[in-house]
Amino acid sequence: MSTLPDIKKDFSGWYQEIVYQAELADQAPVRGTMVIRPYGNALWENIKSRLDQRIKETGHENAIFPLFIPESFLKREAAHIEGFAPELAVVTHAGGKKLEEPLVVRPTSETIIHAMFAKWIRSWRDLPLKINQWANVVRWEMRPRAFLRTTEFFWQEGHTAHATYQEAEEEAYKMLREYVDLCENWLAIPVVAGEKTASERFPGAEKTLTFEGIMPDGKALQMGTSHVLNQSFAKVADMKFQDKDGAIAYPYLTSWGTTTRLVGAVVMVHGDEKGLILPPKIAPFQVVIIPILIKNKDNAMTLAAAQKMAEDFKQAGIRCKVDADDTKTPGAKFFHWEMKGVPLRIEIGPRDLEANQAIVADRLGLAKEPVTLDGLTTHVSSRLEIIQQAMFKRAVESRASLWRKGEKLSEFGPKLAEENCFYQTGWCGDPACEQQLKQYKSFTRCLLEEKTFKECFVCDRPNLRDVLVAKSY
Amino acid sequence: MSTLPDIKKDFSGWYQEIVYQAELADQAPVRGTMVIRPYGNALWENIKSRLDQRIKETGHENAIFPLFIPESFLKREAAHIEGFAPELAVVTHAGGKKLEEPLVVRPTSETIIHAMFAKWIRSWRDLPLKINQWANVVRWEMRPRAFLRTTEFFWQEGHTAHATYQEAEEEAYKMLREYVDLCENWLAIPVVAGEKTASERFPGAEKTLTFEGIMPDGKALQMGTSHVLNQSFAKVADMKFQDKDGAIAYPYLTSWGTTTRLVGAVVMVHGDEKGLILPPKIAPFQVVIIPILIKNKDNAMTLAAAQKMAEDFKQAGIRCKVDADDTKTPGAKFFHWEMKGVPLRIEIGPRDLEANQAIVADRLGLAKEPVTLDGLTTHVSSRLEIIQQAMFKRAVESRASLWRKGEKLSEFGPKLAEENCFYQTGWCGDPACEQQLKQYKSFTRCLLEEKTFKECFVCDRPNLRDVLVAKSY
Repeated sequence: MSTLPDIKKDFSGWYQEIVYQAELADQAPVRGTMVIRPYGNALWENIKSRLDQRIKETGHENAIFPLFIPESFLKREAAHIEGFAPELAVVTHAGGKKLEEPLVVRPTSETIIHAMFAKWIRSWRDLPLKINQWANVVRWEMRPRAFLRTTEFFWQEGHTAHATYQEAEEEAYKMLREYVDLCENWLAIPVVAGEKTASERFPGAEKTLTFEGIMPDGKALQMGTSHVLNQSFAKVADMKFQDKDGAIAYPYLTSWGTTTRLVGAVVMVHGDEKGLILPPKIAPFQVVIIPILIKNKDNAMTLAAAQKMAEDFKQAGIRCKVDADDTKTPGAKFFHWEMKGVPLRIEIGPRDLEANQAIVADRLGLAKEPVTLDGLTTHVSSRLEIIQQAMFKRAVESRASLWRKGEKLSEFGPKLAEENCFYQTGWCGDPACEQQLKQYKSFTRCLLEEKTFKECFVCDRPNLRDVLVAKSY
Repeated sequence: MSTLPDIKKDFSGWYQEIVYQAELADQAPVRGTMVIRPYGNALWENIKSRLDQRIKETGHENAIFPLFIPESFLKREAAHIEGFAPELAVVTHAGGKKLEEPLVVRPTSETIIHAMFAKWIRSWRDLPLKINQWANVVRWEMRPRAFLRTTEFFWQEGHTAHATYQEAEEEAYKMLREYVDLCENWLAIPVVAGEKTASERFPGAEKTLTFEGIMPDGKALQMGTSHVLNQSFAKVADMKFQDKDGAIAYPYLTSWGTTTRLVGAVVMVHGDEKGLILPPKIAPFQVVIIPILIKNKDNAMTLAAAQKMAEDFKQAGIRCKVDADDTKTPGAKFFHWEMKGVPLRIEIGPRDLEANQAIVADRLGLAKEPVTLDGLTTHVSSRLEIIQQAMFKRAVESRASLWRKGEKLSEFGPKLAEENCFYQTGWCGDPACEQQLKQYKSFTRCLLEEKTFKECFVCDRPNLRDVLVAKSY
């Protein structure tokens, strides 16, 4: 048995170790890249599957665009290339020859998708055009961390075109709400959602919306973003349409995406000293069944009961695993599946069978109790629901404990530098005041809807809207 | 309305046009790459979804490995690098710097996956290890054709490790059978499945199994392959395990894959002069409902009936689309959805409603008949099944019409060069005889189980096993 670094003293070390020990991911031979192992991939597939369903239900269609983008495409939008240039991976040779024009491995697909939109959009009848793609993207990463920052990562990127700015803005907010729903109701992670300040926007965006998770170590994790793009994207792609009055106009564009980083968020927000704790709605296995096998005895009845249970669960749509390995002790199995974060554990041995019951214990430590076999499937379904709710509540409480209010940076800045946490404060809207945060290695994360402060956290000009500031991943 | 090139006179032109006109794919700005549009992607997602289910049901787990492979990894296995070198795309610069070692964009993932297997496999208890990945791969393509040959394409690649050669060989055959089942029972495409000759093997394989489709233009399409790899792959990756007796041994490896090329096969095998014909089991829409709208009348009842029908179909798991566009005539809609290959069309107008019926017509032209609304869902389900069967039967007949037997290349060679078709013949097993096919631009496609010829098709040595020869895509 391996042990994990102390989660309270060394959160970062704990994170790295649990990702490897729980077999979510492994280091790959190329610097900055990772291998997502089957257990981590099953978790990601469950997240993807829910999000993909909602993307389709909200009227988007999936398509696939090329991995390679001509370098000249990226250079068309000035702010865009400036933002991405330092992170690009470039193919210079192919098919045994030097290429005439280097190809960039997509860091994001705006430019190539817009080139296709320009081909497909002719009239207002072609709008809105609502496309999504699931893809791998590459941004060269100097400080890689599994799931949180990797050179190659996996995401969905939605790209839409609309006849009016208002419609584009509505789309960007609608998808932000979908992301919040995914995080809160499936990942059991409460998020802060809202607008980014101008200096934190996506390169080339008119407006960037963000949803930020509050990690237990007091740092923010940007979990995804939704943008209304600058009109210049449509202009450089020469994307035009004839409106209802016959006039030629440029469409308004959005893009929005979330990534494999969500897996990292689930690990950080819910884990404890024993390992992962996975929300039932996305856990690869919601239940592990451990038959208590007695040495040198006939365990056929016990094994049959465990298998029958698994069949019943499968029928009811519950994802479960029977661990019947006879080379390991029950204790070793408990340890193993606790580390892997399976929400519910069921033990069944000969004595339980005689009593027509099984022992049901949850990973959160809420209850460990005998349950009669007859009502077991119903019991398990409702327990999974209870665990899902309890995990969200626990995360909300953790967030509250890290959330402070501070009037002036001169007071809370030193605290922010010393102890990681979140400060809600007032801001005049001037980037010069915002820049002051850098001395405390902090940034604005998100503009809030509230206005509880009178003045800016730096100067004495009036507060426009409260803002949340913190360190970040 | 656009028209298609004559499918009989210009099959290749017809193929290219229908792929674009039916909006399956579009040309992308980088040479050799394509954009898979929503309709083509929905078709691919349906194929993927079935295959993914079977891959999991046969005990494999999905994982994700990196896009970039260090150039030195590929060079480890001599035959492997020799086979792929001319097709590689190479990243030489990243993060604003020249890389110390160039990175290859994966043309296939054996080398990187084996490096991870070497880390994960320690003992016989870790075997078999059965992994699959869905991924994009890049092989620089000089003569690109949408879906059939593109620089970037999409596939699954299964990679497994076993304790014995026999077990690895069984795995390779098992996955070949899965592919055949997918083609025949889902894509409605009969295939010829079997072993490749030594000269047609995957670079570095000990044995390559193939499944080949017979296209209506008389050319073979290799639809996918399944390999038992040469032991050298395990050796160069230093992949070892301790067997039950404590001895150190190298595992036996397989790999198997199929690609977006399957979409191209569906287009070619089933299409006709009007456009696509899609097998019901994988069609994005199995049914299109066309309400017959009367100008300047209230069409609310007709539209409501069409919507109700769609609801009922959805409940029954039938994928359908209501085309209620009031700017197009029913005739234009018939033309459009025929071109897109939707298996069943339902028309419903005011007079049908009065008679409590709808008109149901299939894309194959088997029947167009009124059906009472009460039993419509059941009728549609069984009609879809009938269409699926009829499409397979039609494809089997087409294959039979292109299949000839020929004793000596000197006789059938000139015919093969002139008229595309398939020749079953005898072969002594000598690659020198096999090479003779090149003068007729043909190749051996697959060794057959039968032995109906006495002699080799070139020399007078005895036939070992019949072989199928043809031109190919």
